[in-house]
Amino acid sequence: MADKPARGLADVVAASTALSDVDGVAGRLYYRGYDIHDLAGRTSFEECVHLLVRGTLPTTAELDTLVAELAEARTIGASAQAVLPHVIRSGTPMEALRTLVSALSVDDPDASDSGAEANQRKAVRLVAQMPMLVATYHAARTGGAAPDPVVDLGIAGNFLLQITGSRPSPRAAEIFDECLVLHADHTMNASTFTARVVAATLSDMHSAITAAMGALRGPLHGGANEAVMKTMQSIDGGVDGVEAYVRQTLDAHGKLMGFGHRVYKTEDPRATHLRRISEELADSTGDRGYYKMSRRMEEVVFDVKGLYPNVDFFAASVYHYLGIPTDLFTPVFAVSRMSGWTAHVIEQHLDNRLIRPDSEYIGERDQKWVPIEER
Amino acid sequence: MADKPARGLADVVAASTALSDVDGVAGRLYYRGYDIHDLAGRTSFEECVHLLVRGTLPTTAELDTLVAELAEARTIGASAQAVLPHVIRSGTPMEALRTLVSALSVDDPDASDSGAEANQRKAVRLVAQMPMLVATYHAARTGGAAPDPVVDLGIAGNFLLQITGSRPSPRAAEIFDECLVLHADHTMNASTFTARVVAATLSDMHSAITAAMGALRGPLHGGANEAVMKTMQSIDGGVDGVEAYVRQTLDAHGKLMGFGHRVYKTEDPRATHLRRISEELADSTGDRGYYKMSRRMEEVVFDVKGLYPNVDFFAASVYHYLGIPTDLFTPVFAVSRMSGWTAHVIEQHLDNRLIRPDSEYIGERDQKWVPIEER
Repeated sequence: MADKPARGLADVVAASTALSDVDGVAGRLYYRGYDIHDLAGRTSFEECVHLLVRGTLPTTAELDTLVAELAEARTIGASAQAVLPHVIRSGTPMEALRTLVSALSVDDPDASDSGAEANQRKAVRLVAQMPMLVATYHAARTGGAAPDPVVDLGIAGNFLLQITGSRPSPRAAEIFDECLVLHADHTMNASTFTARVVAATLSDMHSAITAAMGALRGPLHGGANEAVMKTMQSIDGGVDGVEAYVRQTLDAHGKLMGFGHRVYKTEDPRATHLRRISEELADSTGDRGYYKMSRRMEEVVFDVKGLYPNVDFFAASVYHYLGIPTDLFTPVFAVSRMSGWTAHVIEQHLDNRLIRPDSEYIGERDQKWVPIEER
Repeated sequence: MADKPARGLADVVAASTALSDVDGVAGRLYYRGYDIHDLAGRTSFEECVHLLVRGTLPTTAELDTLVAELAEARTIGASAQAVLPHVIRSGTPMEALRTLVSALSVDDPDASDSGAEANQRKAVRLVAQMPMLVATYHAARTGGAAPDPVVDLGIAGNFLLQITGSRPSPRAAEIFDECLVLHADHTMNASTFTARVVAATLSDMHSAITAAMGALRGPLHGGANEAVMKTMQSIDGGVDGVEAYVRQTLDAHGKLMGFGHRVYKTEDPRATHLRRISEELADSTGDRGYYKMSRRMEEVVFDVKGLYPNVDFFAASVYHYLGIPTDLFTPVFAVSRMSGWTAHVIEQHLDNRLIRPDSEYIGERDQKWVPIEER
């Protein structure tokens, strides 16, 4: 009945969506029909949340309403606050944050209601709570308390304030805002697909989002931006050491994180923006090392393997320049992607069918059972 | 590049597996080539864990080793213990258990190691910890402490001891053991598929299992056994009220939980066993009501819709007869399915490819961006 397997479901259409579209050949990405090149740098993350979760780019009045709702919703509930000290010892921030995101449901009055209105409210809460949760976790593990968000900064600026402890420059806040927009949604990436598979059992939004957190953590997905930074930091000799490192790694059949993509056959349009941002930050901070290393690595990998950098590659140096600790790079991805995840759960619940594929059996057949004494 | 979507990935082969196989036309289920009809009632859950996780039905010596390892591994770590009081207020046990399973990673020395040996150790721990976690949660919410497991009962018997507070009869323990075997694995069901999608990013086992917990909770998946029981309890007039209830529900295009299956076109072989067990328990307890209602519902639904009962349908009355609270029916499913989930994560990591499908875009195109002031 079933055809041959498409390993990894490559090129298999698993769902219909009105949220985003990728043209992998032309290297284009659209959120609800808007080209990412039109949105990046011109549309705030909050506008992008409105676009994905509520369906349209907001008017000023609509944006004001959403911003007020986000500020109202961002407080971390008592249960997640109480759980926090007990997961600080987790091996990585994403491990701790998976448990903490799950615990957010306890204080969510709509936790078990998957109706359209409840899902909208939960999406706003989760988008608002995610940066607060990362900041609260980071403060707790470093023995302090995160500064309170301020009213004249958006999600991006407040996150930088809370993580670095000092108010970001207007340009730094703008740049990080653009990063959040660039990471907000990307069709059936593994974590979004995970969220939709969970939601398609008619399970609730927190279950779907907790599952997505688990998928994002993987080094073949959101974990790649941290891996890129660690690679850069491990290369001896800075920019002059890049070529030898790349060639040695590829000769040993090692994987270079931050290159290649299941869908793009040309440059990832998000990488175009992040390269530009990385260069700007390198110039403005005077710390050009990681930008130059990134450019050199990009050249060598293209020469040797013909692979393009993906969204994770230049994100690494950008986040580094913005003062974000390396092990929070993947949580930053989650702060942004929460907007896409929640919008996909809403969309899945509005027109649901259980996602339940087939499998190909490759094991032993016709095994004869014998009692344990005779084995 | 991509074909038309297969809604819900029906009949799409998403992965290869040597763990289980379903012949939906003949109504057969196999674990590693052993017919479920040969395993059910003759093979303990611990033997089944060995079969799925370690690859073979064990010899007596191998089984003794595994049983000792399971007993050693079942203690709930300090972090999950500390998190427990803060998630008691969760709306449902599955919501609390999702957070608790996630928190188990904090005290797992192999949490971030996805190597083959670490995965084997984590599988044993998770299989052993899951029933303890359900029992500890249930005791905490009812204000008591779960009895300690005893050495002369297996996972099934100890679970009944811990949940009901009294030692089960040998036959009750045998019957529940058979239930655990029947629920252990089932190809690419939604929660197992979720676990594999997460694992395929090279994320860790706890992330994959936490995600699976979220999927199992859904009423179109593991949540169905609870829904069946609640349906029975809501029917006025007992067995005489069943036909009217079924016809009214179907006339109103309502969904009857516990019937139909994506894969089986005939009777689910697990339902055959659970029907027999339900009848035996009805006879031995003298409480024939829910068994008779189940039989009547099965008849009417087949007459009206031609649908067969699935694994969840008779599981409801069986668990009821065994003294398990209705809202723990889905956690019981998790206690069993943990064996399949962990085996699938092991299998996915041994021969991995990122699971990243395509999507069909159905939204607006060529949207023209304008500044917010002009919207």
